[in-house]
Amino acid sequence: MNMTKPLIAITMGDPAGIGPEVCLQLIHDRSTLQQCVPIIFGDADVLSHVAALGEFAPPEQVISIDEWPTRRDAITSAAVLDLAAIDVECVRPGNVSKATGMASYKYIEASITAALEGQVDAVATGPVHKEALHWAGVPYPGHTEIFAAKTQTDRSCMMLTCSALTCSFVTTHVGYRDVPGLLSVQRIVDVIELSHDAILRIRDTPGRLVICGLNPHAGENGLFGGREEEQFIVPAVQAARSKGIQIEGPLPPDTAFLPERRDATDCFVCMYHDQGHIPLKALAFDIAVNVTLGLPIIRTSVDHGTACDIAWQGKADVTSLIQAVALATKLSSANSVAEAK
Amino acid sequence: MNMTKPLIAITMGDPAGIGPEVCLQLIHDRSTLQQCVPIIFGDADVLSHVAALGEFAPPEQVISIDEWPTRRDAITSAAVLDLAAIDVECVRPGNVSKATGMASYKYIEASITAALEGQVDAVATGPVHKEALHWAGVPYPGHTEIFAAKTQTDRSCMMLTCSALTCSFVTTHVGYRDVPGLLSVQRIVDVIELSHDAILRIRDTPGRLVICGLNPHAGENGLFGGREEEQFIVPAVQAARSKGIQIEGPLPPDTAFLPERRDATDCFVCMYHDQGHIPLKALAFDIAVNVTLGLPIIRTSVDHGTACDIAWQGKADVTSLIQAVALATKLSSANSVAEAK
Repeated sequence: MNMTKPLIAITMGDPAGIGPEVCLQLIHDRSTLQQCVPIIFGDADVLSHVAALGEFAPPEQVISIDEWPTRRDAITSAAVLDLAAIDVECVRPGNVSKATGMASYKYIEASITAALEGQVDAVATGPVHKEALHWAGVPYPGHTEIFAAKTQTDRSCMMLTCSALTCSFVTTHVGYRDVPGLLSVQRIVDVIELSHDAILRIRDTPGRLVICGLNPHAGENGLFGGREEEQFIVPAVQAARSKGIQIEGPLPPDTAFLPERRDATDCFVCMYHDQGHIPLKALAFDIAVNVTLGLPIIRTSVDHGTACDIAWQGKADVTSLIQAVALATKLSSANSVAEAK
Repeated sequence: MNMTKPLIAITMGDPAGIGPEVCLQLIHDRSTLQQCVPIIFGDADVLSHVAALGEFAPPEQVISIDEWPTRRDAITSAAVLDLAAIDVECVRPGNVSKATGMASYKYIEASITAALEGQVDAVATGPVHKEALHWAGVPYPGHTEIFAAKTQTDRSCMMLTCSALTCSFVTTHVGYRDVPGLLSVQRIVDVIELSHDAILRIRDTPGRLVICGLNPHAGENGLFGGREEEQFIVPAVQAARSKGIQIEGPLPPDTAFLPERRDATDCFVCMYHDQGHIPLKALAFDIAVNVTLGLPIIRTSVDHGTACDIAWQGKADVTSLIQAVALATKLSSANSVAEAK
């Protein structure tokens, strides 16, 4: 049995947000250090500056991008890979900008390259600001899409998970009106299969899946909406069941998330962003973990934003990042077991 | 001061659902009887039959439709107005049909007539089955639309309220894809004003309102969707504020319902059915009350369905109906005070 702890890349997120301070908390978190070796992909100067402001311990080990190729195989304790993507003098807490957006994108790019080349076992991403990415000319609406594109993955989806609730998504960062046009039997089957595989790896047992309808009352047999349930969801459920996947639905979206139903369900397959995000945040704000399913690499993420209103004040909660890194570690181990077989 | 208790009409709902048994529980509920005189608009034979099955006490006072004109002013305790709309021999528990849908519609029609003519002070409705109404040829998707049409109201909306959360709705029982086309500045202003007025009457103090965006992240300044936030919601919020209404938003729908935000908000104005129904049911299933705002009469309703799977078994929870009748009573009193001024 390989006793080496997995190396987990953690992107620092937007430098002007709460990413730096949650990274500082993470690299001193005892439970995290027992399970993995966290490497922050970010800016060492920003971390040192925020550490002094927030009275956090500074990083103990900083590795430059030049040192990385020769030192990375010998890293056994938490470190910062200093990508020197932004001048700390140019960053004001809470003021996200084109420059901070570009820096956050560079951390992501470097982490994806490192994961694809096997230099790290998984990536956990800190919070980015979607508008700042947009200002920086990044042609993707968010992490999930960046990871899918950079790893040339054509069949991926977002999953959010916490103890109260796990949801996966057929569509995510698109306008409300664009959702019906993005539904297809194949896409829904893909998300069901990806969800099923992920639950198997996370829980070590086949999952009990539920799928939500698109319309109020799941269309109530065609009374509301364009029969998207009958046209797309029902055939996808039948196809998934024929492959041995246990899945119930399409259920009325509003009664799908009742307490009893939540207890009996390992993953809810949702048609659109807010269908799953509303109950997740109402029940478990800031402690869920985001996983991108279907990638050739492991990628988890915090479920919160840059929280610009409290950035650099030492108030940010590290729980979601700790959970994201723990899940990345768990999935790395599941991968190792699978590869050893 | 008028010490007469208000007369509240309660429609029995679909005879094959849990409506009859929650009505039976209600007319023997001590707290209800202290505040109002409940009159069940339904079928006495069905109630007696379900009472025997579920070991509930039968109704003590049954009034026929012929006796109603002469007896109604002298009613001082719980009663059943027997509309004899269905033969109990034809009703099987859980089997909703064209006949049970038509019966449930007759109870509603009679209650609206009674309220419009001032024979009762308010109406609280039991659960109907939307497909059964449809089979019976009723040309409305639900209660809210029936009440709006029969009272010739052109400016009404649904509100759901419970201690955890109160939501009002710009659109309700329409398909997912139809929502964007139904948004307008005027409609949103109407719903904001109706919500503001209702909170004032329910809480006796001006409400703190929050309005949700339509798109994920409220469109993130145009990144997602068709700029419905800028086109419809922002101008409506400005118009409402110019009338002195306190309202915040449009907020990202997924973070609108966080615990802290819920504590600081009296009503969330939602763009579509599931935006408000999902958090309401996740947080407070079956105990919320539905109110139709903007009608010339008072109408509240249970927030649950016919629950055909447990109909006539004595398992149904009367909490939502008790709350609906209590709110109808409260709003009747607010009306009396307003009329007396």
